[in-house]
Amino acid sequence: MSVYQFLNDYSEGAHPAILELLAQTNLDQEIGYGEDRFCLEAASLIKARLENPQSAVHFASGGTQANQVTLAALMKPYESVIAAQTAHISVHEAGAIEATGHKINTVETLDGKLDPEKIQRVVAEHTDEHMVKPRVVFVSHSTEVGTVYRRGELEAIAETCREIGLYLYLDGARLGCGLTSPQSDLTLPDLARLTDVFYIGGTKNGAMLGEAIVINNPALQTDFRYHLKQRGALFAKGRLLGIQFLALFRDDLYFDLARHANRLAAKLAEGLAEQGFRFLTAPASNQIFPILPDPLIAELQEQYGFYTWARVDAEHSAARLVTSWATQEAKVDEFVEAVKMFGANKVYPQS
Amino acid sequence: MSVYQFLNDYSEGAHPAILELLAQTNLDQEIGYGEDRFCLEAASLIKARLENPQSAVHFASGGTQANQVTLAALMKPYESVIAAQTAHISVHEAGAIEATGHKINTVETLDGKLDPEKIQRVVAEHTDEHMVKPRVVFVSHSTEVGTVYRRGELEAIAETCREIGLYLYLDGARLGCGLTSPQSDLTLPDLARLTDVFYIGGTKNGAMLGEAIVINNPALQTDFRYHLKQRGALFAKGRLLGIQFLALFRDDLYFDLARHANRLAAKLAEGLAEQGFRFLTAPASNQIFPILPDPLIAELQEQYGFYTWARVDAEHSAARLVTSWATQEAKVDEFVEAVKMFGANKVYPQS
Amino acid sequence: MSVYQFLNDYSEGAHPAILELLAQTNLDQEIGYGEDRFCLEAASLIKARLENPQSAVHFASGGTQANQVTLAALMKPYESVIAAQTAHISVHEAGAIEATGHKINTVETLDGKLDPEKIQRVVAEHTDEHMVKPRVVFVSHSTEVGTVYRRGELEAIAETCREIGLYLYLDGARLGCGLTSPQSDLTLPDLARLTDVFYIGGTKNGAMLGEAIVINNPALQTDFRYHLKQRGALFAKGRLLGIQFLALFRDDLYFDLARHANRLAAKLAEGLAEQGFRFLTAPASNQIFPILPDPLIAELQEQYGFYTWARVDAEHSAARLVTSWATQEAKVDEFVEAVKMFGANKVYPQS
Amino acid sequence: MSVYQFLNDYSEGAHPAILELLAQTNLDQEIGYGEDRFCLEAASLIKARLENPQSAVHFASGGTQANQVTLAALMKPYESVIAAQTAHISVHEAGAIEATGHKINTVETLDGKLDPEKIQRVVAEHTDEHMVKPRVVFVSHSTEVGTVYRRGELEAIAETCREIGLYLYLDGARLGCGLTSPQSDLTLPDLARLTDVFYIGGTKNGAMLGEAIVINNPALQTDFRYHLKQRGALFAKGRLLGIQFLALFRDDLYFDLARHANRLAAKLAEGLAEQGFRFLTAPASNQIFPILPDPLIAELQEQYGFYTWARVDAEHSAARLVTSWATQEAKVDEFVEAVKMFGANKVYPQS
Repeated sequence: MSVYQFLNDYSEGAHPAILELLAQTNLDQEIGYGEDRFCLEAASLIKARLENPQSAVHFASGGTQANQVTLAALMKPYESVIAAQTAHISVHEAGAIEATGHKINTVETLDGKLDPEKIQRVVAEHTDEHMVKPRVVFVSHSTEVGTVYRRGELEAIAETCREIGLYLYLDGARLGCGLTSPQSDLTLPDLARLTDVFYIGGTKNGAMLGEAIVINNPALQTDFRYHLKQRGALFAKGRLLGIQFLALFRDDLYFDLARHANRLAAKLAEGLAEQGFRFLTAPASNQIFPILPDPLIAELQEQYGFYTWARVDAEHSAARLVTSWATQEAKVDEFVEAVKMFGANKVYPQS
Repeated sequence: MSVYQFLNDYSEGAHPAILELLAQTNLDQEIGYGEDRFCLEAASLIKARLENPQSAVHFASGGTQANQVTLAALMKPYESVIAAQTAHISVHEAGAIEATGHKINTVETLDGKLDPEKIQRVVAEHTDEHMVKPRVVFVSHSTEVGTVYRRGELEAIAETCREIGLYLYLDGARLGCGLTSPQSDLTLPDLARLTDVFYIGGTKNGAMLGEAIVINNPALQTDFRYHLKQRGALFAKGRLLGIQFLALFRDDLYFDLARHANRLAAKLAEGLAEQGFRFLTAPASNQIFPILPDPLIAELQEQYGFYTWARVDAEHSAARLVTSWATQEAKVDEFVEAVKMFGANKVYPQS
Repeated sequence: MSVYQFLNDYSEGAHPAILELLAQTNLDQEIGYGEDRFCLEAASLIKARLENPQSAVHFASGGTQANQVTLAALMKPYESVIAAQTAHISVHEAGAIEATGHKINTVETLDGKLDPEKIQRVVAEHTDEHMVKPRVVFVSHSTEVGTVYRRGELEAIAETCREIGLYLYLDGARLGCGLTSPQSDLTLPDLARLTDVFYIGGTKNGAMLGEAIVINNPALQTDFRYHLKQRGALFAKGRLLGIQFLALFRDDLYFDLARHANRLAAKLAEGLAEQGFRFLTAPASNQIFPILPDPLIAELQEQYGFYTWARVDAEHSAARLVTSWATQEAKVDEFVEAVKMFGANKVYPQS
Repeated sequence: MSVYQFLNDYSEGAHPAILELLAQTNLDQEIGYGEDRFCLEAASLIKARLENPQSAVHFASGGTQANQVTLAALMKPYESVIAAQTAHISVHEAGAIEATGHKINTVETLDGKLDPEKIQRVVAEHTDEHMVKPRVVFVSHSTEVGTVYRRGELEAIAETCREIGLYLYLDGARLGCGLTSPQSDLTLPDLARLTDVFYIGGTKNGAMLGEAIVINNPALQTDFRYHLKQRGALFAKGRLLGIQFLALFRDDLYFDLARHANRLAAKLAEGLAEQGFRFLTAPASNQIFPILPDPLIAELQEQYGFYTWARVDAEHSAARLVTSWATQEAKVDEFVEAVKMFGANKVYPQS
């Protein structure tokens, strides 16, 4: 690809430290299916950061798989999961949750976030056995539209879930950028305390593939490996997942990579804001959604890869720009310069 | 693990050539979800070897996933798959096929293989809509008990399937060792010609993870990526799978690794046969099942890792010894010596 | 129940003609599972009215079952069904469709109806294999909120479906009242011509239980009895369903019963309209939704059974009044009188 | 059908007492979906006979539905049910159990019955998360091959289930004939005490359709109506099921009808035994399986309807003769005479 990609946070391979550890350990003979010493050590490192000795850690290969395995494990056949209409499970998993037999009750939101009132309204609408019975609340942090939760917001949701008897599940595909966002004060121990299950996304934060599923509610830990196996998530060479999380969590690498992505996204956002552009959602993590004139988008896409996310009006669309652990700062600077240059030369429709 | 493992063919990581190619290409920006140039090139190399320009190639992460995605794609809700009772899908996938809604019609076999008569008998028993309707025949090569098909045998099965209107699906978790077995004359072009779908196992033949699903029947190719996505088999960094199969198929590495495993298994088998031991199934690939006195098994397991597979009589069991691309010849020699030494010192019950 | 029920159209048993035919034929020995001569004859009578010799007719026990069996038969695992947000399959079947693995793409509507633009918008949003693939359009006639389609409206939807490659499925739980509505010019031959599958509701139109599924698209007829069997819809004494539809279709009974229900609903609606009350949706069939002051609802519910359907404002709600083949005209008159009397005595908040 | 049917126990309609009660109550207005006073009263009568105040009673439309709803409610996604290979759920439900995602672990038996040893063997084979986890034991009484359990046998199975942590589920499609078999001392209170769930078959014992599901284990009672609804087993006019069971259980009708069927089956069996014919399984209930010469079967089938069940040797097959509440004694006598007459005239191959 000759254009530089702000398309997503998985355009490159893995952080070099991961490749090095894979190479170092390559010929060690290990037990299969996630019971090797690398998986055990990685799980142990993660648990140490949770400040919750009850939590159990398992590894899966990707976000769709982590969501599918976990949500199917949490619900009885007639139970459903409440999610924002923008939720990955609702929009971008090809019906993976429904394929396990469960309805998703979607809630309209502009910022991709749920709150107690939205949850309570869905529950109140489901009154008897002619309807599904909501059982799980699905949130993501950062969300699919780049926003983040603050501690107080997640505490309020968790409190609502406890009162009503719902499980709280957090999709952490972009958890690194969520936790290191300047807009959020949430921490890993908060998640271990507030959620029943969440996952720590590796694929979009420096790993080749892999997500760490953290089950905080002891009642949900039983037989979880059966669920993993049945849905193709136990790998003969499970070490591949363990080694990657070991590399990410033996020091602060996981968070350092996320901070890099956030910092460059913020730089992009500032550069665009300085040019007077607004955003679909307030920039908070490594995905930003500037509202740009359509001709500018077309010109920029000749040199940079990114999605046109949503039409805003007849002459403007929201673009999605994504940074990652591997994004080069020089490219960010060039992008901002390109916007300036185009802006100096052209008269665009006012957004 | 201090003992040397003949436990399985996934005790080590990936062949070094794979790790090298991963490192070389690591920072290239690529499109996600299996449409990157490595996946395309690997698919192209595989297709060149099939001598079937109609075939389509997709990648999945493991055998259970490949089986689950493919079989679910091949059947209507009331259709079933015929398999040997030893089949991986029946015994060792935690109900992954049933989880997609389908019954497995199992057939008793000693050698893990099907034949036209066995298939016809199952079909004949299913006469009306009160029963499931058999639709797919599942075979594995090599099988779960180390045996292999000859070309004529698979041709006869394929002919039966065509006559009855069944799909033929071949599980190639250990396809490398199946195709390079001295006992089998089957080739990749045979499989492309005879089966509707098969997969080329990477995990157990030198890859870190990954299987290449080959769809030969054009009618089954439509929308296959939807099936993959829905079951968690499309990976953001799908390049990981493409790069590995590129390393395995840009030259003969895939087959060289399998030949190594087969040669060492044969050496083990000969060493044991020379000591007078018999086998549960005739040695043909990288899994052999010698029948050994229980005390000998106990002594060997102090130094070598392997499964006790099945009790044979009151004093003997079949062991399973597995070799791989990474097995060290010196360890094979040592193992045979150990058996000899034990044999010289002890009087074991006659098998 | 001491109060008189306008609660639904299934408060009583079956039309006496059905009970008589059941008694008459009771000791005849018949083949089981829907292949008896009553089922064959009833199917034949229904087909004669369709003016479509290609159609196939099967019987199921209820609406949820008819929807579940049929929709599961029409979709591949990753395919979805488009429906109004008020659709029975989305709201009131406890997730029966999702339980077969499929997502419902819901569309906001006030009147419970779809149109080409709504359908096209959903299809346009589903662009690739990361999303489900819409495959079926679900409409109901009459709808869950009492409205009906006109021929031109359904023709436009059918045309859209044909162009895009979607199946059109019509839920006819209340088809009798839909087809005999003064607001609709649709006929059974229209449905046989325009839909791929529809069902003729018996339960809510004089039968004890039973729906007749009509498959007009020959490609969808294959093996349908397997689908029925697998979801518990083939009954040992399937004659029970055949006999009922025989009684309903050997003359015009089916339509006469629906006309009775519609006529009394219209009488109720007129009586309320004369008192100045408005309706949530324009009265068209046997379900009407008058907007009434909350105190009036409370008073009426002491003597009459009906649901409070939806809150309209702080002081008014929409009630749901349902008539059936068994509704007594005198009770309709009494209800209207009661409303008048209450209205004369009380000052209600203005709606 | 001009021939007289011993084909099954559902060739006729319902016992006249049921039709009468349906007619009597036909215009009573009742609440829908199984909460009407007939369902409540029928459930109450059944519970009175169970001598287990904890039991809950629900109604479903047929055996496949009762099995599907109940078994799906009892298992987590990776759990399985152990059944005889002759079990209806395994052979004759078109994969209804697998359609809910669950494997059936079948056990070879000649007499259609399980015992503790068979159950323990299946459980012992399932050692880890690569396999399904057996969770339910499925037995039928009478079995699919006409045999019955004695109290001691079922107590032993129940004891095994309790020890291992399995649920015991009993399919009572032909429970009336099982409980009134001279070969069995089991009673309804025994079933309420020993099983977690069982169902009382109505369809094959005088009802038009309907089975009463009895949940004895309180932990399994929660939200059961959701399961029923989701699988199409809640009927708008649920009264149809309640009224039938009311007619069957307000006095001893249910058992009287079963005794009639058993008595005539025994008479058939004795008549055949007197002619020197043997049986595939020892006659015990309303299904008997005499081994007859093929030419005799052919001749008898010109006048009587019955299935040829299984080939026994080159010249003999087992027939299946079924009696019901509606079987006429004169026809039984005629059948035995016909066998005698044929026997006097022809020399058949010795069985």
